[in-house]
Amino acid sequence: MIIKLTVEYDGTQYCGWQIQPNGVTVQQRLNEAVLAVTGEKATVTGSGRTDSGVHALGQVAHFETSSSIPPERFAAALNSALPQDIRVVSSEAAEEDFHARFCAKKKTYCYKMYLSGTVRPLYDRYAAQVSFPVNVLAMQEAARAFVGEHDFSSFMASGSEVKDTVRTVYDARVTVDGELLSFTVCGNGFLYNMVRIMAGTLVEVGGGRLTVTDVKQALDGGCRALAGKTMPARGLTLVSVEYD
Amino acid sequence: MIIKLTVEYDGTQYCGWQIQPNGVTVQQRLNEAVLAVTGEKATVTGSGRTDSGVHALGQVAHFETSSSIPPERFAAALNSALPQDIRVVSSEAAEEDFHARFCAKKKTYCYKMYLSGTVRPLYDRYAAQVSFPVNVLAMQEAARAFVGEHDFSSFMASGSEVKDTVRTVYDARVTVDGELLSFTVCGNGFLYNMVRIMAGTLVEVGGGRLTVTDVKQALDGGCRALAGKTMPARGLTLVSVEYD
Repeated sequence: MIIKLTVEYDGTQYCGWQIQPNGVTVQQRLNEAVLAVTGEKATVTGSGRTDSGVHALGQVAHFETSSSIPPERFAAALNSALPQDIRVVSSEAAEEDFHARFCAKKKTYCYKMYLSGTVRPLYDRYAAQVSFPVNVLAMQEAARAFVGEHDFSSFMASGSEVKDTVRTVYDARVTVDGELLSFTVCGNGFLYNMVRIMAGTLVEVGGGRLTVTDVKQALDGGCRALAGKTMPARGLTLVSVEYD
Repeated sequence: MIIKLTVEYDGTQYCGWQIQPNGVTVQQRLNEAVLAVTGEKATVTGSGRTDSGVHALGQVAHFETSSSIPPERFAAALNSALPQDIRVVSSEAAEEDFHARFCAKKKTYCYKMYLSGTVRPLYDRYAAQVSFPVNVLAMQEAARAFVGEHDFSSFMASGSEVKDTVRTVYDARVTVDGELLSFTVCGNGFLYNMVRIMAGTLVEVGGGRLTVTDVKQALDGGCRALAGKTMPARGLTLVSVEYD
């Protein structure tokens, strides 16, 4: 049976999603929890990797099991074997051909920033500091420019070897709540570091070092240098993954 | 010269505000920072203690110094000697008779809760879980009952030796934002654990185990057993302290 999980985690203490030799990862903790609960060695496959320090409200993952535990009971069972900063929010039976990564149709990410001259301890775990004044209207306009089908190669970490760099962004918006600024983006897929580079580009637009025209050029251009810096991991949260 | 500080901190890793023999406190870190910056042994006095695990957005504190550092520069200077989870948001010269505790006129606290059957890693650091459905309208009505001058002895940790248990609450309200519920209360002073017991009482009202009438009786009564449980420290944040 294939079990589909929705997982929330605070990524601060983890070396990202994907298992790796040095450092504890979220996937490793989930594999261990499945083993503890079912006695089976399983691989919990996520909708995609999240980098070290990135959080998730709604990561989706799956694994195969022959356990007799009812599918919807897996959430509580796995939580009993997981650390507090990783929680399975829900579990359910999925179709036999369900695959968390290959069947994903849309992903939504949120990048949070706070506007302050000093580090703010109560924001700093889940948001990145922006220490200069920003033009929010310009950032909102630039975010709208991301919407549509574009070659996002300017917004991909240099050194990535992905060949098809065309992605479709369905929605991209900047909202403000007091000192907190959120960039929320939904798309059919994201290149390596794409959301963090988009956020860094919006910050440059906000600070007046890039214009909306520059952003549009970067979307045509395919040159990493045209876009802004990569923002820190801790401001990024994978909000949800949608399937057919 | 007396320097007045506004301090933000994430209380998770600290044994509260006040210096104590076992465990690191926020006051200790501030005293150490003043020593590092001025070479003077100073005592940084807060507007009041916060318990182990309680956070602050706007704790106010003062200390005396003969340093020639300009008052408004102390914020940056102290921050260079403080850990990241404690930040001095601002510093200024105060009147010679200013005292962070004795001159405080109003304090505002916020207690945050999240409504969820499972622990939510991204909320759990700054909010407490409420795992059953709550009647928000009843909680809002009960919060309004706190407003005014009352004997809050039912809302004080048992064993406290404070004699005058009359306090004035200027404002108390419950607001909801998605799964997050905030209880914000402003008063001229608070008894030991008072806000956490008020929050616990509101949760009991929300769950139907106490009524608004029960809350009003507890406000007359002076019996700890009439009010709700003490909610966990991590949901509590000292938002601001006001002076004349």
